[in-house]
Parts: sequence; C-alpha cells; structure tokens
Amino acid sequence: MDFSLSPRAADLCERVASFIDTEIVPVEQEYEDSLAEARVAGQQWRPLPLLHALQAAAREQGLWNLFLPSGCEEALGSRYLPRGGAGLSNTDYAPIAEQTGRSFLAPMVFNCNAPDSGNMEVLIKYGSARQRGEWLDPLLDGRIRSAFAMTEPAVASSDATTLETTATVAGDQVTVNGRKWWSTGVGHPDCEILLVMALTDPQAPRHARHSMVLVPRSTAGVRVERMLPTMGIYDEPGGHGEISFTDVRVPLTNVIAGPGQAFAIAQGRLGPGRVHHCMRLIGLAERALELGCRRALSRSAFGKPLADLGGNRERIAEARMSIDQARLLVLHAAWLLDTRGPGAAVAEVSQIKAVVPKMAQQVIDMAIQLHGGAGLSDDFPLAAAWTHARALRLADGPDEVHSGVVASHELGKYRPKRGTADE
Amino acid sequence: MDFSLSPRAADLCERVASFIDTEIVPVEQEYEDSLAEARVAGQQWRPLPLLHALQAAAREQGLWNLFLPSGCEEALGSRYLPRGGAGLSNTDYAPIAEQTGRSFLAPMVFNCNAPDSGNMEVLIKYGSARQRGEWLDPLLDGRIRSAFAMTEPAVASSDATTLETTATVAGDQVTVNGRKWWSTGVGHPDCEILLVMALTDPQAPRHARHSMVLVPRSTAGVRVERMLPTMGIYDEPGGHGEISFTDVRVPLTNVIAGPGQAFAIAQGRLGPGRVHHCMRLIGLAERALELGCRRALSRSAFGKPLADLGGNRERIAEARMSIDQARLLVLHAAWLLDTRGPGAAVAEVSQIKAVVPKMAQQVIDMAIQLHGGAGLSDDFPLAAAWTHARALRLADGPDEVHSGVVASHELGKYRPKRGTADE
Amino acid sequence: MDFSLSPRAADLCERVASFIDTEIVPVEQEYEDSLAEARVAGQQWRPLPLLHALQAAAREQGLWNLFLPSGCEEALGSRYLPRGGAGLSNTDYAPIAEQTGRSFLAPMVFNCNAPDSGNMEVLIKYGSARQRGEWLDPLLDGRIRSAFAMTEPAVASSDATTLETTATVAGDQVTVNGRKWWSTGVGHPDCEILLVMALTDPQAPRHARHSMVLVPRSTAGVRVERMLPTMGIYDEPGGHGEISFTDVRVPLTNVIAGPGQAFAIAQGRLGPGRVHHCMRLIGLAERALELGCRRALSRSAFGKPLADLGGNRERIAEARMSIDQARLLVLHAAWLLDTRGPGAAVAEVSQIKAVVPKMAQQVIDMAIQLHGGAGLSDDFPLAAAWTHARALRLADGPDEVHSGVVASHELGKYRPKRGTADE
Amino acid sequence: MDFSLSPRAADLCERVASFIDTEIVPVEQEYEDSLAEARVAGQQWRPLPLLHALQAAAREQGLWNLFLPSGCEEALGSRYLPRGGAGLSNTDYAPIAEQTGRSFLAPMVFNCNAPDSGNMEVLIKYGSARQRGEWLDPLLDGRIRSAFAMTEPAVASSDATTLETTATVAGDQVTVNGRKWWSTGVGHPDCEILLVMALTDPQAPRHARHSMVLVPRSTAGVRVERMLPTMGIYDEPGGHGEISFTDVRVPLTNVIAGPGQAFAIAQGRLGPGRVHHCMRLIGLAERALELGCRRALSRSAFGKPLADLGGNRERIAEARMSIDQARLLVLHAAWLLDTRGPGAAVAEVSQIKAVVPKMAQQVIDMAIQLHGGAGLSDDFPLAAAWTHARALRLADGPDEVHSGVVASHELGKYRPKRGTADE
Repeated sequence: MDFSLSPRAADLCERVASFIDTEIVPVEQEYEDSLAEARVAGQQWRPLPLLHALQAAAREQGLWNLFLPSGCEEALGSRYLPRGGAGLSNTDYAPIAEQTGRSFLAPMVFNCNAPDSGNMEVLIKYGSARQRGEWLDPLLDGRIRSAFAMTEPAVASSDATTLETTATVAGDQVTVNGRKWWSTGVGHPDCEILLVMALTDPQAPRHARHSMVLVPRSTAGVRVERMLPTMGIYDEPGGHGEISFTDVRVPLTNVIAGPGQAFAIAQGRLGPGRVHHCMRLIGLAERALELGCRRALSRSAFGKPLADLGGNRERIAEARMSIDQARLLVLHAAWLLDTRGPGAAVAEVSQIKAVVPKMAQQVIDMAIQLHGGAGLSDDFPLAAAWTHARALRLADGPDEVHSGVVASHELGKYRPKRGTADE
Repeated sequence: MDFSLSPRAADLCERVASFIDTEIVPVEQEYEDSLAEARVAGQQWRPLPLLHALQAAAREQGLWNLFLPSGCEEALGSRYLPRGGAGLSNTDYAPIAEQTGRSFLAPMVFNCNAPDSGNMEVLIKYGSARQRGEWLDPLLDGRIRSAFAMTEPAVASSDATTLETTATVAGDQVTVNGRKWWSTGVGHPDCEILLVMALTDPQAPRHARHSMVLVPRSTAGVRVERMLPTMGIYDEPGGHGEISFTDVRVPLTNVIAGPGQAFAIAQGRLGPGRVHHCMRLIGLAERALELGCRRALSRSAFGKPLADLGGNRERIAEARMSIDQARLLVLHAAWLLDTRGPGAAVAEVSQIKAVVPKMAQQVIDMAIQLHGGAGLSDDFPLAAAWTHARALRLADGPDEVHSGVVASHELGKYRPKRGTADE
Repeated sequence: MDFSLSPRAADLCERVASFIDTEIVPVEQEYEDSLAEARVAGQQWRPLPLLHALQAAAREQGLWNLFLPSGCEEALGSRYLPRGGAGLSNTDYAPIAEQTGRSFLAPMVFNCNAPDSGNMEVLIKYGSARQRGEWLDPLLDGRIRSAFAMTEPAVASSDATTLETTATVAGDQVTVNGRKWWSTGVGHPDCEILLVMALTDPQAPRHARHSMVLVPRSTAGVRVERMLPTMGIYDEPGGHGEISFTDVRVPLTNVIAGPGQAFAIAQGRLGPGRVHHCMRLIGLAERALELGCRRALSRSAFGKPLADLGGNRERIAEARMSIDQARLLVLHAAWLLDTRGPGAAVAEVSQIKAVVPKMAQQVIDMAIQLHGGAGLSDDFPLAAAWTHARALRLADGPDEVHSGVVASHELGKYRPKRGTADE
Repeated sequence: MDFSLSPRAADLCERVASFIDTEIVPVEQEYEDSLAEARVAGQQWRPLPLLHALQAAAREQGLWNLFLPSGCEEALGSRYLPRGGAGLSNTDYAPIAEQTGRSFLAPMVFNCNAPDSGNMEVLIKYGSARQRGEWLDPLLDGRIRSAFAMTEPAVASSDATTLETTATVAGDQVTVNGRKWWSTGVGHPDCEILLVMALTDPQAPRHARHSMVLVPRSTAGVRVERMLPTMGIYDEPGGHGEISFTDVRVPLTNVIAGPGQAFAIAQGRLGPGRVHHCMRLIGLAERALELGCRRALSRSAFGKPLADLGGNRERIAEARMSIDQARLLVLHAAWLLDTRGPGAAVAEVSQIKAVVPKMAQQVIDMAIQLHGGAGLSDDFPLAAAWTHARALRLADGPDEVHSGVVASHELGKYRPKRGTADE
C-alpha cells in the first residue's frame, strides 16, 4: 500500500496548485467585480477577457487538458499531443482535479471544466472521425464550448429510462423534440454543440432505447428558454439552461456510436466524471476550511478569537476528518477505476457521489457560520461554493439514488446467487 | 394545561390563513414573474402594485398590525385603534405569525414584517410623543418603511458590545459615523427612517455605552453603499443593505429614551421579535413540507412515487416531528413571555432561536431534495425559503451564541450561588 | 393556551418529586449494592425489603396508583378508592410520570411501573368482574405482579399480525402454544399472571385473529426458559423473560373481552402507555442532564472545568433543548388523548414514541461521555439508563415503525380522498 | 498510489481470515454458553480450555504475535523468531488487525490482544534485558498476561499530567501508592505483571514527572478492589479492574527506561496501539454490517423483507460508506506512521481515534435495530460489540480530546509561526 503520488502527478499537481495560488486566486475578486458590473449592463453571458489571458498562460505552461485519460494520446494520434494531456490515470489526475476545485475559475482556465471534459471524453471514446474533427478539436483548443442535455423538467430524471425527449430516426436524419433543463454551460456564447440524450426506440430493451445526438446549438428549433438560478446564483457566463427542441433535424451521422447507445455512453462518461466532480468538491471544501480557520483566528467575540468559542474547534476538526476520509474514498475509487475498470467500481463510484457533496455542503456551511453575514454575501466565495455543493447533491443523480446503488450492492453479497440483478 | 387557541386568536388565525390561501398564494408566481421582469429593467427596488392592493384588502378585513402587543392600545390611545391591532398576547399572536410565514409576501401584506414590526414596538414602548407622531403613525399605516442598523462588517456583531459606529453627543445634536450592514429593508423606496445602534460613551458600563438613534434615511451623510445578496438572492424590494454614515447629524431628541439606552431597548425588542421570526419560520417549514409531500406523491421514479422510495417517508416523518416540537417550544416561550416577562424567559427565547432556523433549514433542504433541480430554481419558493432560514441562523445572533446562553443557564442551576453571572 | 399544571396535578407532582428526592434517590446506591450482593449469592430475582418499605410509605402518603385514569373510579366503584388513584387525566398524570422516571426505583415504589400499570388498565377497561376480582385487586395492592407476553423471537413482532403463538378455543377451554420473549417482569417471584396475545382464528380479518388470554404463571406448560440481558443488564428482580407455552390450558373465561379482541385491547392500552413510557424517559433524561452538568462543573482537565472545554456547553444546550421539545410533544399528545380520544391521536402518539427514546439515548450518551469511564460502570445510574432508553427504541414498536405511521398520516393529508387507508 | 496489500500481508491476512471463519466463529456461541455456565458457577474469571486449543492451532500455523512491528526481530535476536512475528509494517499489519476484530475471541487466539500487545511493544522498545527476560518472553508465549494501569478514578485521566498515583523513588526501591481503574485484563488469573504509570517528581517539567513501573500482580499491597462492568458486561475472563496500590515496593530496576520516562513510553505505545484498536473496530463494524444485512434479507414485516422497509437500505449504504472511509483513514495513518514516524502523524492518529469508535458504535447500533430485541440480548455478538465500541469512545482518550488535537493542528497551519505550540 502506498499513498504517495507518482512523481509525474506530484510535479503537475504542484504546478497546478502554484498557478492557482499565484495567478488565479489573486484575481478572483477582480473577476467577480467585473462580472457584477457586466450584470448591471446585461452583459454577464459572455466570458471576461481575464479568463482568456489565464487560459493562454496555463496552456503555455503545459497545464492544459490534463483530464485527458491515459491511453487517449495513442488513440488519437500525434495531432492531439500539442493540445496537452499528460497521459494520467484517474488516480494521478484526481489530486490535480482537487486543486482545480479550490477556485471557481480554475477548471475553465485549465480547460478541465464540466461538462466539456466529459463531452470530450465521449468524443474520444465513442466519436467518429468526422465528429472528432468537427467538435473535439475545437473543444480541446478551448475555441468552443459544449453542453450535456439529459435532465428533463417533466420527469424524475435520476431514473434515466423515463426520459421523454425523442430522437426519431427517419432515413439518414434524426429529429429531436422535447425539453431539457439544467444543461450546464449553454449560456456561454461559445457553446456550439449539445450532446442530447433522447428516446429513439421505446420498444427496445430498457437500456437500448435512447440515443446520444450531437445537436449544434444553432440548429433550427433549438431554443434556450431561460437560464436557471441555483438559490439565485446563475454561474455566468456558462450557467444552466432550459432548452426546448422543436422538430430539430440533424443528420444520422450526428448520433454518437449509433442509435440506442446513449446508456452505454453515459455510463462510460460517468465514472471518471464523478471522480472529477468529487475531487473538485474536496478542493472546494479545503478552501472553505482554510477560510474558516483564518476567520476563526482573526475575528474575536466575547474577548476571545472565534476559534476558542464553543464548539468551533470540534467543528473544525470534524471538517478536517470528513474531508480526509472523503478524499481517500475518492482516490480509492479512482484507483479501482484504473485497476479494475468501471464495471467493477460501480458501487464505489456511487459511494463517492453520495458522500462528497454532502460532506462539502457541511464543511462550507460551517465556514459560512464562522464568517457571520459575510459568509452569505458575495464577499467570499463561500455562498457560491455552498450553492455548488448543494446542487451536486442532485446533479448527476441525487444522493438517494446513489445510496440505493450502494445498498443493493451490499445486500447482494448475502443474497442467494441467482442470475438476476438486485431490483 | 390547555393547548387550544383562545376563541379570539382562533378566529383571527383562521381568517389570516384563509386570506393567505385565497388571496396571496395564488398570486405568488405572478408576483415573482413581475419581479423578474422588473429586475431585467433594473426596477426591482420598488414595490409592485399588487402588494398595495393586497394590503388594502387585508386592512379592510381587520387583518392589519395584528402583531401589536396587548396593552399597547391603552398606551397609545384611541387614535391607534383604527390602525388595527387586536390586543393579542404573544401566545395568541404566535399562531398568526406562523400563518404569515407560509408566504414570503404575507408579512408585508399584513404590515407585520420585520424589521418594521419590531421598530414600531420600540417606538410604542420607548418613543417620545414626537417620535411616535413623526414615524410611528406612518409606519402603522404602512405609508413608510424602516430599517434597523445594528450589525457591522468590521466586528463580530453577535457580541454587540463591540459595535464601533459612533453616536457622538454634542449640545443638542448627535453625530453618527460608521458603517452598518445587513440592514434589512433599506432598499425599499419608502424606507424613511433608520434605527441606528451606535457607541456614545466608551467609558460607561458595558451595557450603557450605546444609543439608539433615529436617523432619517435622507439625512446628509447616509449612503447605502450596496445591497447584499444572500446566496445570490436580494429579497427585493426591501433587501439588505450596507450603509455608511459620515458625519450624519440629527437632533438629540432623535435618540430613543436618551443616550446609553440602546441595550435596554434592543433587549426589550428581541423577545417578541424572536417569537415572530421563529413562528414565521415554522410556517415556512410547513409550507416546504406540504410542497415536499405533494411532490413525493406526484412524481415517480423507478416505478414508484418518490414517497415510496428509500428513506423519503422517514424524512417526511422526521420533518413533521421536528416542526411540531419546534412549534410547541416557541409557543411555550411566548407563554412564558406573557406570564413571567422577558427577564424570566431569556434562556427559553434563546432556545427557540437556536432550534427553529436550523430545523427550518433541514426541512426545506429535504423538500428541495424531493423536488430535484426544480427545488433549487425559482420555480418553487423553496430556494428562497432555504436562503431565508439559513440567514436566520446568523441574523439576530448566531446559533452558537444562543446555544451558549442556554448552556450557561443550565449550568447555572448547579453552580454554588454567587452574586456574579455566568460569563 | 395555558402551559401550567392544574393545582391538583401540581400538588401531586411536587409531592412525588419530593418523595423521590428525599426517600428514594438517597437509597439508590444502597439498593444497587444490595442487589449486587444478591447477585453473587444467586438471589437477585427477588425484591429487596427496602422496596416494600418505600411502597408502604408512598401508599400511606396517597402517592399510589396515580396512573389510574380519570373515569375509572366511577367505573370501578368505591372499593377501589382506598387503593389510590386521583382521577387524573393523561395531561395531569404526565408530569408525575416524568418525576417517577428520574429514579429506576420510583415506578415500582408508586405502583406505576410497566407492564403492571398497563395491565391494570386493560383489566379496568376490558376485564370481566371475575377477572378484576382475581387479578386487578391484588395488582392494585401491589400484592402480585404481571407480565405482558406479546413479542415473539421467531417473527418481526412490530408487525403484530404475524404473531404465531396460538390460543386455540375448544369448548370452554383455551389452549396456548408458542414462545414469547422480552416479557418484562416475569422474573419477579410475585409475577402471577401473564397477558398473552395469541392467534385464535387465522381466517378472521387481520385485526380480529388474535386473543388476549390471562394465563396464570403457575399453569402447567408455562416455562420461563431464560431471563434476557440488555447489553448485559438484567433489570432484576423483574427482568425480561423468554417463555415457552406448551399445551397450556386455561378456561375460556380467561380470554379478555372474548376471542379475537386482542388488537382492540392492545390499541387501547398503547396510547396512555406510550405517554407514560415517554414521560418517564424524559425524567430519566433530566436526571442524566443533571448528572452531566454537575460532573462538567466539578471535574477539570487541561486546567479548566469540563464545562468550559470544547463543545461541552453546546452539547448541554442541545440536551436541554431536545428534552424541552420532547416533553412538550408528549404533553401535547397526552392532551389530544384526553380531548379527542386515542383514535384521533394515533400519529401524535407514534411521534412521541419515535422521538423520545432516541432523544433520551442521546442525552444519556452525552452525560456518560462527560463522566468518562465512570459513566459506563455501575457507579452512576447512567449505564442502566442508557440501556433502558436503547431498549425502548425497540420495545413497543421500533422507531422505524412509528416513523412510518407518522409519514403515512402526513402524506394522507395530500392524497386524493378514498375509502382505503394508506398501506 | 497503490491500495493493494503487499503479497506477504495479503497471504497472512487471508490465512487469518480463514482461520477465524473456520475455527473461531463456529465456536463463538459454544464459548459464550460455556462462559454463561461458568458465571452461574462463579468461575467466569478463568480462561476456557477452548481458547488454549485455538491458541495452539494458531501458533502452529504461524499466526502468532503478528502485531510485532518490523524491525523488532533484529532488535531482539533470533530467540524471538520462533515466537512469531512476521516483520510487518503498520500498514501491512492493519488489515490483519481488522480481521481479528471480527470476533471477540480472535485477538486472544492470535496473541494480539490489548493490552498485552502494547505492553510487549513497550518491553521490546524500552525494556532492559532483565525486564525482557522476565516478562516479555512469557508474554510472547502467551504463558502470562499483563495489564496497563494508567486511568484513575479521581481525576480526568485524559489529561494524563493530572495522574495522582505516586511512584516514589528511595534508594534502589520504588514505592507505589494510589488507585487505578479500567485496567483491562487484570481479572485474568494469568495476569502477572502490571505496567503502572505514576508520579515520581512533581517538580519536573510536565511531561517528565511520571514513571512507568513494572509491578508484579502478586506484590504485597496490590489489591484488585473490584471488576468493572461496561453497561453490565464484564468481558471475562480478562475484564477491567479497579486496583489499589498501598505501599507497594518494587526494585528501581522495575522502572522502564528509568524514572520520568512514562510519557515518552506512553506516546511511543499509542500510535500503533490506536491503529490496532481502530482496525479491530472496523472488523467489528464489518461483522455487524454483515449480520445486519443477513437479518434484513431474512426477516420480514408488513409483507416485505426488512431490507425493503423505510430507510433501511439507506442506513446500510451509510454504514458501508462510513466503514470504508474510516478504514482508508486508518490505513493512511498507519502508512504515515511507517513512512514519517509517530511524531509526524500525531494529528492523523488522533483523527482515527476520534472517527472510528463513533462510526463503529453507529454501525452496530443500526445492526442492533435491524435485529429487534434479539440485538440487545446475548444471542448475537452485537450487544457486546456495541459496548466495546462505546467504551473505546472513552478509553485511550475521549473523542473530544482527540478532536481537540486535530483542531489545534489544523488551526496551527494558519497561525503566525512562533516557537510555542498551540495551547
């Protein structure tokens, strides 16, 4: 057993951390202020120039597309090499993802943000040469952005078999009709391509009914109905949109891996994606704990620093212990993904998704409490952090669904073995 | 022991509830939509006409200023009678306050919203005839609004002895200098008067140093620096503001009850105010639970209504049990305020403040989870409800401070009696 | 609304409290030591003389059988009056039950202990004149003891329809066969009568299949197989037994209220019984909190009293707040039982059963923690208190079942009304 | 990063697990029954022959003294090799310790039980040749047992600087006076040697005042006053004793590493000891979860297996997630002990001690609840397991103290660096 990072990962992790500390954190408030001004002017749905400068610097330093999984360079050939990627395993990338979670700006700066990273992985694993050429290359360059349109307002989308948006195949065309929401990133002016999960064949077996369709944002019939706030926070410029699809026609070649493959694709996308989400949340929780500790030491009431009042120390200890446990759980799941493959790590990946957002929410809540009213305002990144963690208790499957997967797996150990799966 | 409402309270409570159900809840979404439009137009800091119509109807039906405590009619004389008030005890008003908590619009509609209600109580109990004439009358009519400026950004304001804003007395003038924030209601265009708690005599005994000064909003040197979001929510049109006071001069007659009386005034304001806050939160938690139950019954996943999945029923039961316990605790505290007076109910009032916001936050969080992504958006009043409950874990003293009061009181029962108080 | 005790209840409550403080608490340790000696000698399953002396004193002071519900004196006629009872409502008796919960000895001293009190109530409400004469009179005198045999080792007895012990009627005889356990009190040498719930007619409607049979302990075929420990604690001399019934024959007249009535009887027994259990647990939690506070003030570590270390104050406050909330919930349920009857208070009675034992367990756990190792030993009544509270999370229906009742009731408010009950 | 076991550890771990499954678990109930019989006969404080047979088998299979840390073979020379030990690092031994925690009998069977293992480590690291010869050899053989006498009834022993028992040096003699309790193992007839921590020089610096004295159990003046129950459970035949020392004289050569070294010795003993305790608790929690799952699948109520009722699945998932997180935390702490040494792992070792017993208590509590009344009885190892986990929230430092260490360490990261330690 060895808990140390590989030299490669350690080096990259340190460089990423250092870039965040020296280049990103110091400009966060400036960025926030510019965004606030843009809001007043109704210009908040476009990226701030600051971001592009940071991206250029990151790319120049080789801190670009680090999420790209080991193996993909060979798969993609030499033309992708200059676009970054370090051939990292999930285990090696995880600590880097944690670092990027410390600042809300960082994932975008390193081109490692959801949903683009997951969408790129899908195109690498399942995309045709044409699909890759058209959308993967500019995504790898950060020239365009993408969205993943799965969740629907009308159904409990955590049970993805209930999705109602249709992708009807007729000849060499696919027609999409329906409504999606919480499509992250769709507010960004560079968002050019949507991955839409939709029902193609209601008669097929449960997990072969849906297709994953590449729908250019500009196709006729695609309409962003509104951008959705999370507790009043819009996460501009990407945001989260509600989108209607009305007789949206794209060529059949836009269906990734062919009709009926959406579940297989989504499953392949989810394992590493959840590791990334969870590690970023751990970074966020670390940031909150740091802010909380600093506040606890620097503010006083009733003649003592907050750190010495009531149960504050116990809460700080509790935060440290829950973060450390959660991190180890995610790293272990990443290692299982690497060593045994996604199929053998389903329960462990559900574990991290059930554990980490709740943990992060609690740690951040504690840090907010230590900040008093300031913690609720936008003077600190805590309110946005809390909102983000809260949203991730629902996004990508609510806690309860993942908890159910873990329980089924656990009970399965003691059931008489039969051919059928639990529930 | 008798848990039934007095006939008077029961009648008013039912009429208030019925007004909310038939007049307010049905227009909530319309109100929200109008507010959203106003935001786009930069017009969100003014009241919507809808509200005035509702206020007029409520006043006509005698559902106006019901918060006014028993005894105040006599104190104020007949001219206040037509302005409502029913001479209710804290115990009798509490269930009405619960009802008004079910809709974010209701407290304003019935002229029972914080901080106006508390400020009116202060003027009734401590105000001079002139102060009452100038500000109490229009407040009772709902013609103007007020703010309470106590919390400061620079100090841990839960320890109010640390407040740094100064109110310097010179001759028959008072000069206020400093900075306050989280002054609720100050964004409202009708907000004409601020009650400012400020330091007058640093040499006086700890609780006689501060004065409560009536500062008209239009006085030179008063500047609302910005409005503060709570997790991105601004609570327009009243909102919460950060205010700077620069050499703000008002006559000495604007000091309520004379210099050095701010603590005495604040204490008298707090008992009933906390009962009101807590009962409204209980109403809010009831609303959230109702929404949660309805969603749990109407949405299905994995072939069952959410109500029949996982631990949802246990969480619903937990919510019911924690709401009912919290309500009884608040009612009991209100009864102690009525029967023994504020001095004998300090620990019990701190209990409710420590218990209820946390309880409400949890119940609302559960209801959000049952709603999936919709719960985080503004399609339901849950996101705003959550934010409000979260803020009240800090506003008016953070949980930890109230918890400390309860503990000191509890331990005090077993200490050798001495002359000195516990901490 | 009025939270004050009736003068009658207040007087009795104070006298009971005073009796416990002056007569019982001071001899607890002596009692424990004698019991420990008796254990070494194998004599622990007989009452200690100390108890009889206390009982005599309590009876002489009119503090005897106070649990007897209002109405029962008239029902029973004058011969029961000298045996005590004060005609108290559930609401009035509840605070007295709380007092008796403070000491493990008290319920027995006042002849108000489970299961005797519940069994007496059953005989009063449902017993025939012969049944009352034979068993109620000596129970009221404390001359004999009784047990309630419902739970079975072989089935999940919280679903009482699954009970398998049979009570077969043939002619004017009933034959009982089966196995019960956790029959409290059966270890006591004075335990002469068992109320056995058993299956008579498997073809009858679900809730009319079982009968409640009075089985004298000395009947042939009744065998106490063993006494059961709870975490190693046996609660001698009454204890909790596992009993086998092998062809146990009693006359048909021993069936209370006739065959098939067991569910009706059990339901009638449960409402007040749960109020009693819960109020005693509240008394127990109060005792634990008192011990915890005293320890927190008298022990020091790291240079400070425990009360001033870490989160101890917050935990003490938490205990106070959860006790007070739980007490109010139980009092309210008692009041509903009195004013609306058991049928209208089912959900509220389930609430208290789900809330109070868990609350008591937590408060006692906290007090144990403050005592260090001493809290786990038998030097303080805390270990036994903890064990008792833990057991009550299962006895008389596990938390989860009561929680389910509360949830069904809550969801039922929002279901389309139909003729059928939830689940 | 690599979460796999070394081949050596994997092999031993599997063999230990297999021995427990095939040799120990099947005889647990027989052992319990024999012990129960022995209790009736007053013979419970002697080991049952069953145990000796198991020990012989374990030793024969090379599963003996596996706790012995890497490095100690060289230190001790070849004569210790046949007495077992496999030169395992903390990281490698940890999973074996987990296995031994699954059965209360196993640690004794493998001669890896507390406090003997810790005492042997002390003698290896700090003992003189004479001390080793006299006590270490027979301990390694399992011919004698030992106790560790540190905790005192009169002081909050978690602050070990307050210990009051004295070890007065005069000439070449040491005289011990005082009272200790919770000395585990002292009830065993083979317990021949006590390690007593006592005050030698009150004027010395805080952590140099106490000595660790080897006191043979048979020395005049040593008296086991009583054996202490934990919630009624005595853990015979070793148990936990209260011991008085009255003018107990031993030669100065019995002081380990010389007077004043007790703190240094205790610290060196604690790191690995806490890892062992925690890993055993994780094994215990695993056992409880397994029992809980089996019960949840095999028992039905209301027409469904318990596994499908209410929140049971979520609780099972919660247990799995908290066990897995806790295990990883302990393994990581073990790895830090191995790679950085105890001095650099203080906070991490405190973390595991604060996290694991609480986690185990909760998991076991959940499993008990699934078992109904049976879970509280001695029909399952759950009641004893719960009691053991509960006791470990106090033994070896209460949760709160460890939590405080973690918080100090965390806050220390953000303090201005000074020469002095936090508090």
